[in-house]
Amino acid sequence: MQKKTGKPFPQDAREQLTMARDAVFRSWNNDRAIHYRKMNQIPDSLGTAVNVQTMVFGNLGETSATGVGFTRNPSTGEKAFYGEFLVNAQGEDVVAGIRTPLDISELEKVMPPVYKQLREITTNLEKHYRDVQDFEFTVQDGKLYMLQTRNGKRTGPAAVRIAVDMVNEGLISKEEAVLRVDPQQLDQLLHPVLDPAAKKTLALLAKGLPASPGAAVGRVVFTADEAVVQAAKQPVILVRAETVPDDIHGMEVAKGILTSRGGMTSHAAVVARGMGIPCVAGAGDLEVNERKKELTVNSKGKKLLLKEGDWLSLDGSTGEVFAGQARTIDADPSSGVLKTFMEWADTFRGSFGVRANADIPRDAKVARRFGAEGIGLCRTEHMFFAEDRIAHMQAMILAHDEKTRRKALQKLLPMQRADFAGLFKEMDGFPVVIRTLDPPLHEFLPKRENLMVDLARLPHADAKAKKEMSQNYGIPVGQLKKELAVLLARVEELHEFNPMLGLRGCRLGIMYPEITEMQARAIFEAVVQVAKKGVKVIPEVMIPLIGGVQELENQKKIVVQVAKEVLEKAGMSNLKYLVGTMIEIPRAALTADKVATEAEFFSFGTNDLTQTTMGLSRDDYTKFQKDYENAKIFKNDPFAVLDQEGVGKLVEMAVKLGRSTRKDLEVGICGEHGGEPSSVQFCYRVGMNYVSCSPYRVPIARLAAAQAAISGDKTETMRTA
Amino acid sequence: MQKKTGKPFPQDAREQLTMARDAVFRSWNNDRAIHYRKMNQIPDSLGTAVNVQTMVFGNLGETSATGVGFTRNPSTGEKAFYGEFLVNAQGEDVVAGIRTPLDISELEKVMPPVYKQLREITTNLEKHYRDVQDFEFTVQDGKLYMLQTRNGKRTGPAAVRIAVDMVNEGLISKEEAVLRVDPQQLDQLLHPVLDPAAKKTLALLAKGLPASPGAAVGRVVFTADEAVVQAAKQPVILVRAETVPDDIHGMEVAKGILTSRGGMTSHAAVVARGMGIPCVAGAGDLEVNERKKELTVNSKGKKLLLKEGDWLSLDGSTGEVFAGQARTIDADPSSGVLKTFMEWADTFRGSFGVRANADIPRDAKVARRFGAEGIGLCRTEHMFFAEDRIAHMQAMILAHDEKTRRKALQKLLPMQRADFAGLFKEMDGFPVVIRTLDPPLHEFLPKRENLMVDLARLPHADAKAKKEMSQNYGIPVGQLKKELAVLLARVEELHEFNPMLGLRGCRLGIMYPEITEMQARAIFEAVVQVAKKGVKVIPEVMIPLIGGVQELENQKKIVVQVAKEVLEKAGMSNLKYLVGTMIEIPRAALTADKVATEAEFFSFGTNDLTQTTMGLSRDDYTKFQKDYENAKIFKNDPFAVLDQEGVGKLVEMAVKLGRSTRKDLEVGICGEHGGEPSSVQFCYRVGMNYVSCSPYRVPIARLAAAQAAISGDKTETMRTA
Repeated sequence: MQKKTGKPFPQDAREQLTMARDAVFRSWNNDRAIHYRKMNQIPDSLGTAVNVQTMVFGNLGETSATGVGFTRNPSTGEKAFYGEFLVNAQGEDVVAGIRTPLDISELEKVMPPVYKQLREITTNLEKHYRDVQDFEFTVQDGKLYMLQTRNGKRTGPAAVRIAVDMVNEGLISKEEAVLRVDPQQLDQLLHPVLDPAAKKTLALLAKGLPASPGAAVGRVVFTADEAVVQAAKQPVILVRAETVPDDIHGMEVAKGILTSRGGMTSHAAVVARGMGIPCVAGAGDLEVNERKKELTVNSKGKKLLLKEGDWLSLDGSTGEVFAGQARTIDADPSSGVLKTFMEWADTFRGSFGVRANADIPRDAKVARRFGAEGIGLCRTEHMFFAEDRIAHMQAMILAHDEKTRRKALQKLLPMQRADFAGLFKEMDGFPVVIRTLDPPLHEFLPKRENLMVDLARLPHADAKAKKEMSQNYGIPVGQLKKELAVLLARVEELHEFNPMLGLRGCRLGIMYPEITEMQARAIFEAVVQVAKKGVKVIPEVMIPLIGGVQELENQKKIVVQVAKEVLEKAGMSNLKYLVGTMIEIPRAALTADKVATEAEFFSFGTNDLTQTTMGLSRDDYTKFQKDYENAKIFKNDPFAVLDQEGVGKLVEMAVKLGRSTRKDLEVGICGEHGGEPSSVQFCYRVGMNYVSCSPYRVPIARLAAAQAAISGDKTETMRTA
Repeated sequence: MQKKTGKPFPQDAREQLTMARDAVFRSWNNDRAIHYRKMNQIPDSLGTAVNVQTMVFGNLGETSATGVGFTRNPSTGEKAFYGEFLVNAQGEDVVAGIRTPLDISELEKVMPPVYKQLREITTNLEKHYRDVQDFEFTVQDGKLYMLQTRNGKRTGPAAVRIAVDMVNEGLISKEEAVLRVDPQQLDQLLHPVLDPAAKKTLALLAKGLPASPGAAVGRVVFTADEAVVQAAKQPVILVRAETVPDDIHGMEVAKGILTSRGGMTSHAAVVARGMGIPCVAGAGDLEVNERKKELTVNSKGKKLLLKEGDWLSLDGSTGEVFAGQARTIDADPSSGVLKTFMEWADTFRGSFGVRANADIPRDAKVARRFGAEGIGLCRTEHMFFAEDRIAHMQAMILAHDEKTRRKALQKLLPMQRADFAGLFKEMDGFPVVIRTLDPPLHEFLPKRENLMVDLARLPHADAKAKKEMSQNYGIPVGQLKKELAVLLARVEELHEFNPMLGLRGCRLGIMYPEITEMQARAIFEAVVQVAKKGVKVIPEVMIPLIGGVQELENQKKIVVQVAKEVLEKAGMSNLKYLVGTMIEIPRAALTADKVATEAEFFSFGTNDLTQTTMGLSRDDYTKFQKDYENAKIFKNDPFAVLDQEGVGKLVEMAVKLGRSTRKDLEVGICGEHGGEPSSVQFCYRVGMNYVSCSPYRVPIARLAAAQAAISGDKTETMRTA
């Protein structure tokens, strides 16, 4: 004290109290607290409180003790009294992880009356608060003092299980149960687990406490700072003797956390559960040397050494730690307690749909398993990047006239058709929204600066360098000079100052109508092919990046013409399909009444709409994101959480305008915000028909929508489509 | 006929009539007509009409004739009977320019009664239509037939003169006079003329007809296609024996047009006047060989040869043609008939202001001469590109810490201060809006790809190449390797995928507050310096590229802090100044009510607002502009004419939202649309306080605003600022 503050420790109790109180208030603004709030989106303006209590002592001897506990298991949700205590100790000793505490069940043997009283009190507390309680107690000379109780933090799996159990116990209603689980937490139930088969092939290094469930596979790092550096490139497992609050930035980016010391309520365990990151804690067989960056295992008499960068696999649900890179298998949301929970959520969700963004049949399959009711976005260009296709795509782009272009497109047609057929099959009975070609063409060609540099190097390149170039570009060595120049010339032609705002989306289809034509043909030929097999196909063709109705009109004409031709030929003229558009440019939103005269559906591309509405490139934002966060310019990252005030205003306006000219306009969202809970609730509120998100986020969106519905937003009448 | 259509010429008169009628209707869709409409913004849906008249013949002998004329001179506006005729000829012969026609005054000698009757009729027509008449007539065997009359097309100078004369003659009111002149046409009165002194030093090649006024200086081209190619790089003069409708695309891009044949109503003359391009027609001393690409002059016995690429200077007001590159001098709008006309316009304009975009004192001076009532946009970065400053700017950018950055900024401070002082002096009593630094920093550094290529070339470069690089970068040869790598590293750091949407505008000032601080200091130190000399200084500091109120708040705080400090020190705390913002990002417009709680003025940056609202990069749009024009996606080029439906909707919304929280909010526009008549009228209509445009367009904006005011838009009450 003297050393840190320059003043002696005060001897007056009142002064001590005042200083202690102020220290707590000041802690609101320390770096760790600020970081925590930022991570959990807690407003800085909320403030904190100080509770003043009489001091009791758990360290007065063998009749004194201290402990912490939960009325149910916060990791699994199991209805079991759960906690830890130490005899002759103070609270700090339990959470610090220095002495390994005893399981709370031992208390019954050590201090039976105290244990009985504790059970009674905590059971009452749970009934009173109608939620799991996280409590702290101290026993001073045989007398039990409750220090604190609060609703207990829990993992996603625990949250779901507790909610379902409490409904079954008659403690809460189904509505309450659905509202009890933070949709983000579901993520923990949807993540992969270690493949049991793979486990058998790997060396089991140790078994610690199952502190936070889920599988984690990554490379070993020993410091939080190193975790941040490496995590940008590869998955990492943060390995520490024990974690401290200053490690929080490293814990946040790690795939998993492993500690050799501490219990289920140690810092590592509590924080990892809060973040939904798998964690094995207190694996005592391990010796962590953070200075040397070594992890030593003293198992079964053998000594094993892992260094920074070695692969490690954790199972946070069992506490197992394996050397090596285990395979993982996907979670199955269609069974068990989660299934029950999601069924309740879906009842409340009503007609509000949840679709998935999926480009290939495999993703579509996952999406269905996670409850997706259709595909809200299939990005056709993702198919073009495949190795067997990129050459045809490049030939198409390098073509100097329509005839050559059509020839290359003709080669892509059967491939696209097969892709679409696969999607339609998976989505039997559900709609599939297919977007026509969107990205700038230069994305399919080598990078301009690489070509320039290679052309500059070529005259002085040795045989090895030339061979490398030849392989890179797929051009014979002898033709490098000529062909690289040709390639560069075209790349220069296509070079753009602001590709985001350049030749892409429907602009491509307007410049080269034959691309749209080929894609429409692939779609409808696939429709015919799959429908003939008895599958119910509901195709929705989506035109990207329009700024007004004229562009949609232009592209729709092509699609309708091809559809008519293909369907008539197959005798399927009655097959229903929709042609609609992305709303991802402010002007399209502003003129949505006109756009809807042609569009049969809108799908908000909120990634691009955020970029254009905020004048903010997602890729370039990273450069000043830190400064913007420090200056508190945005409440959240606008690319993660929809900016309801600005972008949302445009979205709401567009929904209203669109429905003003087409009452049954189908409206959805396919930007990444479609899987973010607060954004999903916004979409529900403004009267959209569905959200679409990545397959793994489908249950999150389903829950968020159900919560919006329960919270009293009655916009159901608007969704008449 | 047989050859072209495969059918013989029909002998039935009715059939001939039907076919002729249809041919006229069909002409609506020929390429020339389409091009003409596009150029003049005439909707394709308008359609055309066919007039059927009894045929009369001007070619029945010496008592027959045909001619065309205007009731006033369509080139100068002079009140003088004006026209041409040919005896024993048909109408085509006059306009085709094959026979050189006689001046209409000659008709009085050849056919006195016909001349008298023609004067009576045309005078009556002018009185009836209250406008200049452009008429055609034929004399058949001594009898006068009027074929056609219409309001005459005229040059800008003629339009102004005729409007003023007609008011003085009591024919029309001042309001009508102001409405009679197309604001775009004023451009012709504001363009430079050939410097009389320069004329004396150049060889006068020939004198043709003064077919369209104004000075033109450029390099000779002989075909319309070549004109298009060359005009992208340099000013060109299109030289033809005579022009034909197929030349229209070349005429459009030429600075001036010169023909050796044809009269004042020849194709070249009529079209050039319509376009406001200087033209000398029928310069018979010249011989144009379009195949050989040579212009031969047979003047004063000497023979002179000009080839493609040689410089040529024209005076379209006198008909003079000079070899070489003449100096030009600026037009003076503050004298003569234009002065009277603009004074009338300004009366009707009321309190709606017109400011100019000007970065340096010289431009500010021009702006004042053209009637600008302040500076609406001073781009401070333009000052940084000057040769003596760019080094300090680069040092600032390359700085790795705040201290080094501040040192470099300190060197820029006195330069900025001097620039601002100059502007304030010129604008004595008028507001000066100064925008803080806007462009991405990499614009001040060498290009990334050049650095990459030069670094790749360096190891194999010979002494000459190295010297060249050394000069290019200002780096000694010995340090090239190291310094280029350093430079490239920083350029890479600053490299952006979409610079338009990246680190620029207020984002720079938020990342590097010391830049805003320096600029604020330069502004207010200049204010103090100039105000002390008795000049009335009205500074308005403008923060660019905000997306919401938070960014403005952040930057405003810095500006206000510096202003307070500087003004207090000078004992000028009472000096009034404003801090406001550009509205150039959709989100700023959408949240304008909040923005206005901090902003004391809005200035719409419609260049960027158009780019973001339409998701359209101005630079990249050129790549598909042709396809968009052909597909009729936009009515006009949205970067020339404000897109009122989309961008305009946002502008209108922002004005209303802004005034809802700050009643006296000053609102203007500083995008290039601020000088485009239909956009100016829009700005007037939505209740802006002023427009700001390039100095030369100030009179155009003044007139457009006056016309909006006369046309009954009474939004005056909204402009309370």
